[in-house]
Amino acid sequence: MSIAISLPRLRSHIDALSRFGRNPDGQGITRSCWSPVHEKARAWLIGKMKAAGLETRVDPAGNTFGRLGGEGPTVMTGSHIDTVPQGGPLDGALGVLAALECLQSVKEARVRTRLSLTMAAWSDEEGRYGSLFGSRVFTGKLPRKAISALSAADGERLVDAMARAGFRANEAWKARCDPSAIAAYVELHIEQGPHLDAARIPIGVVEGIVGIRRNRLTFVGEPDHAGTTPMQWRKDAFLAAADYALRAREHIVGKGSGRSVTNFGRIELFPGVSNIVPARAVLLQEMRELDARVLARLERECLALARAVARRRGLTVQVTSLSRTEPARCAPRVLAAVERASRGLRLKTRQMPSGAGHDAQNLASITEAGMIFIPSKGGRSHRPDETSDWKAIERGGNVLLHTLLDLAG
Amino acid sequence: MSIAISLPRLRSHIDALSRFGRNPDGQGITRSCWSPVHEKARAWLIGKMKAAGLETRVDPAGNTFGRLGGEGPTVMTGSHIDTVPQGGPLDGALGVLAALECLQSVKEARVRTRLSLTMAAWSDEEGRYGSLFGSRVFTGKLPRKAISALSAADGERLVDAMARAGFRANEAWKARCDPSAIAAYVELHIEQGPHLDAARIPIGVVEGIVGIRRNRLTFVGEPDHAGTTPMQWRKDAFLAAADYALRAREHIVGKGSGRSVTNFGRIELFPGVSNIVPARAVLLQEMRELDARVLARLERECLALARAVARRRGLTVQVTSLSRTEPARCAPRVLAAVERASRGLRLKTRQMPSGAGHDAQNLASITEAGMIFIPSKGGRSHRPDETSDWKAIERGGNVLLHTLLDLAG
Repeated sequence: MSIAISLPRLRSHIDALSRFGRNPDGQGITRSCWSPVHEKARAWLIGKMKAAGLETRVDPAGNTFGRLGGEGPTVMTGSHIDTVPQGGPLDGALGVLAALECLQSVKEARVRTRLSLTMAAWSDEEGRYGSLFGSRVFTGKLPRKAISALSAADGERLVDAMARAGFRANEAWKARCDPSAIAAYVELHIEQGPHLDAARIPIGVVEGIVGIRRNRLTFVGEPDHAGTTPMQWRKDAFLAAADYALRAREHIVGKGSGRSVTNFGRIELFPGVSNIVPARAVLLQEMRELDARVLARLERECLALARAVARRRGLTVQVTSLSRTEPARCAPRVLAAVERASRGLRLKTRQMPSGAGHDAQNLASITEAGMIFIPSKGGRSHRPDETSDWKAIERGGNVLLHTLLDLAG
Repeated sequence: MSIAISLPRLRSHIDALSRFGRNPDGQGITRSCWSPVHEKARAWLIGKMKAAGLETRVDPAGNTFGRLGGEGPTVMTGSHIDTVPQGGPLDGALGVLAALECLQSVKEARVRTRLSLTMAAWSDEEGRYGSLFGSRVFTGKLPRKAISALSAADGERLVDAMARAGFRANEAWKARCDPSAIAAYVELHIEQGPHLDAARIPIGVVEGIVGIRRNRLTFVGEPDHAGTTPMQWRKDAFLAAADYALRAREHIVGKGSGRSVTNFGRIELFPGVSNIVPARAVLLQEMRELDARVLARLERECLALARAVARRRGLTVQVTSLSRTEPARCAPRVLAAVERASRGLRLKTRQMPSGAGHDAQNLASITEAGMIFIPSKGGRSHRPDETSDWKAIERGGNVLLHTLLDLAG
């Protein structure tokens, strides 16, 4: 176990990458995929990979690879270099730069592995144009036609964004991989939650990535005059939505797995003026859970609850499914490799689900995949003050290194 | 009691006025104050008033008057000819055209009254630029400087809208009346609520017009990740607002006057995306009540409730008062005149508050004022299918006529 990463080099790379897209006045980093500053970051990364002696390649979906070793199945590791608007310096960047650091350390130490090693920076993980875009295309989950239809919330089309960066969206589908070429995948990431930090545990061994349901519930009542209609005559769509949300939250906390979560991130009322009773309330609900059966049951029970609340108040409710991803279980062989690597470094571990989506969930559908978490200070992520200790980062990097060596045998 | 209005003539006037601003395909009537179609309607009305033998005048705030009789204090009646977008044919129009019908009937019957009679069509009652605009200026409630600052929700300035119609906003303040010139005011209006229609009572004698409080409550929590933050750690601004709204509704129903009402017509969440816990919920609350002390108490109690709900959930709440109008009591002398007129016509009455605002509430601050309600079918108003029976309209017109004769002695 004498081989180890270089924290000073990894730290200098993290600092260097964080300057691409840094906003003035501490407003974090904005580095959306395909943006000019993202393309500059990609060029910088390719330069660093070449300097480390890796064989580099960018596929038609914009996924950027660096390979160490010869032909045959490869053990992959990576993450992404795009950020949310006003994001932090570690989400994605850590996994990519730790991957670079591991491969560079292996190369410098002249350790020979049975399988080759490949690092990846996946395109548009944060989903400005389509969430987990690069890994979805790579794993064949995004149909050819769907790609050219993608666009951002502000209306910018993926086709135009890719063209500006020198890519052709109508050729992106060619990035689909041959699964037999991928022996395993492991990704290092900050937890983005508070559990490891609160429990002072350095390494999270990810059991799987939660499935997510996003539903739009439209409660339909009557647009009565808010001054002249008796209270007991009203069919108030907002109060129905409020009643449902409070009950659904209790249901998911009380009847879920204990780790099931839900969120109501958006609600809109129509006509939306102070002197008319809301006739329509459009509520967005998200549910996340690692156990597919529990997730399906909670979704069913919430739908029944919404109908019961609406009926009791004399309203109706329409439910539209906006998106559904199933939970992705990590591979036992990868979990075991992470546990062995941690034990070798005398680091305590905790097995846990990932409550956030990651490219690893797509890789899990074509190869044996897993993830390693390190603590996020205060659980903060997707914000400028997202951070972790340098010591924690070094521990995570070394666990990744030894996990890769284990998997590449 | 032999004098009576002519229903055929009143009906033809209501039909004629409803054609100004009628939308195609049954989408009601849109006749915003100062719009070209509103100005055409005003010209039509002035023509009808002149034809009826009234002395006409338009003041600098755009209030349109027709007078019958000589100098000295006058008994006024009227309403407004502007509508909400996609409104109905009776709100406002009935009160103006019934006033015209009453004055024309008095003139034709050659009945001599001690006091003169004046009909009014008040400017912008619906408040595209400022609610109850014309009657507020007329009664001196709108400061000179405030007038030029008024603008519509879509940004159009009152100054520009008035200029387009040939008026000068900076001279509107000159419309302020001499209160001693107004002996009394009475307004006929559809109820805009369901009470009279449901109880089959032809005449509502309005005791007063409710006071209205509009408050903006901003619940402030934390924008946590909706996947990785444990449910019990979240400070969810939406759930706090939902909890408060349900409790405040119960409080106002249970602890109000029995006729107190509240509405939450609008809520906005920030950042407003499905995967972030709402950090801010901005909720609009409106409360209406006829008793000033009850209204003040309910507002105080709701504020305390909002703070308690926020505190219990680990959030804070900020409350901003958006508008406050005090209840306006109708004058006992006017109520008595309406009751006498109804009794003379053998019509049942019910005393009731007006849950909606009306120009009469401004007139009540400078003279003895009152209102007469007739049933709204199904309580519908401010919508294309707003209607009342022609028989009900005739009854209301005749009660107005005899009330005016009573007050003008």
